[in-house]
Amino acid sequence: MRIELIAVGTELLLGHTINTNAAWLSQELAKIGVDVFFQSTVGDNPSRIKQVLSLASGRSDGIIVTGGLGPTEDDITTQAIAEFARRPLIFHPKILKKIRNRFQRRKIAMSKLNERQAYLPKEAREISNSVGTAPGFILFGDSPQKTGTVPIIALPGVPREMKPMFLQTVRPFLQKHGKTISVLVCKTLRTTGLPESTIAARVTKWLKLKPPVTVGIYAHLGEVDLRVMAKGETPKKAERAIAKIEKEIRPKIKDVSFGSDEDTLESVVVNHLIARKKTLAVVESCTGGLLAHRVTNVSGSSKILTQGLVTYSNKSKTNLLGVPAGLLKKKGAVSREVALLMAQRIRQTAGTTFGIGITGIAGPTGGTKKKPVGLVYIALATSQKTYCSELFLKGSREEIKWQATQNALNGLRLELMKT
Amino acid sequence: MRIELIAVGTELLLGHTINTNAAWLSQELAKIGVDVFFQSTVGDNPSRIKQVLSLASGRSDGIIVTGGLGPTEDDITTQAIAEFARRPLIFHPKILKKIRNRFQRRKIAMSKLNERQAYLPKEAREISNSVGTAPGFILFGDSPQKTGTVPIIALPGVPREMKPMFLQTVRPFLQKHGKTISVLVCKTLRTTGLPESTIAARVTKWLKLKPPVTVGIYAHLGEVDLRVMAKGETPKKAERAIAKIEKEIRPKIKDVSFGSDEDTLESVVVNHLIARKKTLAVVESCTGGLLAHRVTNVSGSSKILTQGLVTYSNKSKTNLLGVPAGLLKKKGAVSREVALLMAQRIRQTAGTTFGIGITGIAGPTGGTKKKPVGLVYIALATSQKTYCSELFLKGSREEIKWQATQNALNGLRLELMKT
Repeated sequence: MRIELIAVGTELLLGHTINTNAAWLSQELAKIGVDVFFQSTVGDNPSRIKQVLSLASGRSDGIIVTGGLGPTEDDITTQAIAEFARRPLIFHPKILKKIRNRFQRRKIAMSKLNERQAYLPKEAREISNSVGTAPGFILFGDSPQKTGTVPIIALPGVPREMKPMFLQTVRPFLQKHGKTISVLVCKTLRTTGLPESTIAARVTKWLKLKPPVTVGIYAHLGEVDLRVMAKGETPKKAERAIAKIEKEIRPKIKDVSFGSDEDTLESVVVNHLIARKKTLAVVESCTGGLLAHRVTNVSGSSKILTQGLVTYSNKSKTNLLGVPAGLLKKKGAVSREVALLMAQRIRQTAGTTFGIGITGIAGPTGGTKKKPVGLVYIALATSQKTYCSELFLKGSREEIKWQATQNALNGLRLELMKT
Repeated sequence: MRIELIAVGTELLLGHTINTNAAWLSQELAKIGVDVFFQSTVGDNPSRIKQVLSLASGRSDGIIVTGGLGPTEDDITTQAIAEFARRPLIFHPKILKKIRNRFQRRKIAMSKLNERQAYLPKEAREISNSVGTAPGFILFGDSPQKTGTVPIIALPGVPREMKPMFLQTVRPFLQKHGKTISVLVCKTLRTTGLPESTIAARVTKWLKLKPPVTVGIYAHLGEVDLRVMAKGETPKKAERAIAKIEKEIRPKIKDVSFGSDEDTLESVVVNHLIARKKTLAVVESCTGGLLAHRVTNVSGSSKILTQGLVTYSNKSKTNLLGVPAGLLKKKGAVSREVALLMAQRIRQTAGTTFGIGITGIAGPTGGTKKKPVGLVYIALATSQKTYCSELFLKGSREEIKWQATQNALNGLRLELMKT
């Protein structure tokens, strides 16, 4: 079954609101095996809404329209759907009573405008809204291009109203009426440390797979994901198909894969440390606290992170860690030598298993020819040894900070893998 | 002029990625008076991409396509546009050289796959990408429905690559070739410290305004924005209309307004500190480095932030700041007394104008009946006095961290306002 999504709202076309409903609905539809091939967004304009409905009804088996069901005069979705399907609008006293009760419970006077929300196209079935005033509805509309009819489902645009209405009413409806043959299951394998093209070259063979099992590649800042997707008659069958492909791919990405699905690099590292009863202290210069922030985003991190320092000034490097002023002068604060010493000293003073020191130039100013913006040194001190990497990162100030912490976390992850 | 936006990518149709490009591009286009009536999303499928291009070229004056310009085999946007416009793909040695140099600078081997990115449809003009490998392009394609031609502009889907390319190349192109009739100007007034409903009640009168000048209200975590929008024949006229409304609204939000448009709370605070030659040191417990991270996101912050401490363990509070172990035992690490001492001690040891200390329970575990999750103490030490606020915050671990830093920054802002 193919469903097409239409978002109605001039605020979307003006860019004042980001359409998060499309992503959420697409994910939920994929879970029940419904394909989404097209998503469109259109303004609060009757003829353009009808134009999009006409197109969608010709190429899809069903339409979900979000937005434009509110009480104000620029909410015209119900009217436009009624005109497109050539149905009159019918007044529903029961719906009006529900809306009125809602206002009474909250001790607010109902506006006359809300009466509009009690009208639905003839033969439409109400979708009850437990969170707000706008009811949704399901209508089997006429398709001008096909002889059959496709259902048009209208939902409010407010995500916290739309989501329960979809889950409680629309999903069961689609599962009953849609010709659901299969389910779609996804598993995301997360990697860091190599660019997208290098990962792609390693798994070219699998990227060419055709449904029912496919593999896609997606790059984020400092991370490349491989998404394995399988369609199957049952979740079990789809999961088995994924497991087979995963087993083939795993050896190819062994050195760079840090987790899957909801794992983050910081959650993986923190949980490794907790499991091995190891501890960590960090000292940051150019990343300015982001590394400690990412580590402490993980619940339970207080077990492993004892302290963090943000030594932004040279003086603080000397006062807090005893980095000699002479060394800072001779080699510069952004140098391999200073990074190594920062990592060693924080590990010693905090008495932890690991110490991480980061120093660099996040930009946009402060770079020189010899030490450009994006130059970052990351040192990791263990009881045996201290390592240091030199990175040349690109991007904005915040992107350089992010990539530097990504490298620091991955360095620690690789060190933990050894033991 | 009407531009239509097409986002290409199966990850969008599966809901794995939220299409933020559409909102950003729509906003930028509105600023230069370009209308967007339709936005569509389509998967990595050549015939469906061509179908959407055909429709768009028939009803719009230009098309911006984002996504599908990467090096891998499911990146097929360039190919699909070339087929739609009936142009062969031409190899550009200069583009390949640029891509190759990019890899060399970063000391990474280029994958053979990246060669695909050096092909553009015949007669297409390259849009240089300074951030990533994928070049964009501008092509005047043939419209099957019209006798004229509409320009097709292809940009990468990665926002940090797409945005500078739009601003540097596409916007000037559209300004030169588009028939701009009116412009839309927006100004966002940013507030923190009061809930949306309270702000709304203060400005009800202006929220009811009708075009050409309107005011909208938008709530984010720890922040409420008022957006004033005006359409006018010229930017000057629209700006004058906005200035008039702003002058009326300003007195109503004087106590909570911290800036406008691109201002962030941290940028406002950091720039105040720089302008007044004041300095800051922070010590964080439950916010785990987020406060230092936000401050150091502002370029120039090295002038005012000398150091930050993340004293996650009790021991580190004692060792680094001399918070007596007895006090920690008696009052608990999360207490007014400890917060006050943290702020005072960090100010003294760092020798700064201001010291901020934060201690609390970010959750989801660690709360008790007396000290629930979300309890946070924020202390601000000055040369005269130390203040402490007690907050009961709601939300996830990350949301509590964010709101705590929002309060800390706003407390410092209000203190700076006094002088």
